[in-house]
Amino acid sequence: MSDCPLCDAPGGRVLWQDEFCRVVLVDEPDYPGFLRVILNRHVREMTDLVPEERSRLMVKVCKTEQVIRDVMRPDKINLASLGNVVPHLHWHVIPRFVDDPHFPNPVWGEKLRETSHAVPAELEAQLAAALNSLV
Amino acid sequence: MSDCPLCDAPGGRVLWQDEFCRVVLVDEPDYPGFLRVILNRHVREMTDLVPEERSRLMVKVCKTEQVIRDVMRPDKINLASLGNVVPHLHWHVIPRFVDDPHFPNPVWGEKLRETSHAVPAELEAQLAAALNSLV
Repeated sequence: MSDCPLCDAPGGRVLWQDEFCRVVLVDEPDYPGFLRVILNRHVREMTDLVPEERSRLMVKVCKTEQVIRDVMRPDKINLASLGNVVPHLHWHVIPRFVDDPHFPNPVWGEKLRETSHAVPAELEAQLAAALNSLV
Repeated sequence: MSDCPLCDAPGGRVLWQDEFCRVVLVDEPDYPGFLRVILNRHVREMTDLVPEERSRLMVKVCKTEQVIRDVMRPDKINLASLGNVVPHLHWHVIPRFVDDPHFPNPVWGEKLRETSHAVPAELEAQLAAALNSLV
């Protein structure tokens, strides 16, 4: 075991993966469809990757964004690579709705309301199918 | 005038620009060296760009990250494209230090302390020089 939770465990329900990275569904009840694209190996920053790897990772982040847009039709997408707590490169890909708990704040900001958003039935299966249908 | 502040104004002190995007220094007293990479034209999401444009923008974001690392030696870099308030594609590139006001929280989260970080002399000039020395 390392001391990195993203080296020791998937970090969510794995919907897609290859030898380079994985896409996981995050368990955030306020944010159904919140996905993370996680580099498999332990690297801190985008600029610790060679340019071809940065590009490969961002292509997957953008494909994940497109999947969320296609399946969920959010009002906005939020992308972020922070890693202050877990410095293992991972991208948050977050569907945002104008009536979600924090909008227009970031999901890490002040909570403004309780959500009434219904979780689409079969959401996980839809996201997984869309991710796996991509070339 | 449009109703978009990033169409109507630079959105910060412009340190570098071309016909596609610009890099601006944000006026955030708690976060010296906080830069934004702003697409010049009004587009909401990364996936509203064609893949070649996404790549071009992320190459600039990564170069900006490298400049901040070289000049400021932060403990972590935070990258984010949110746009909930201003849905005009822009990337936050934020140097984080373990003793900055919010660390390890995101800068949009709870403030944990006042900062005692000295702003490096000539920081703006150093960042601008580094950005303009890139190919």
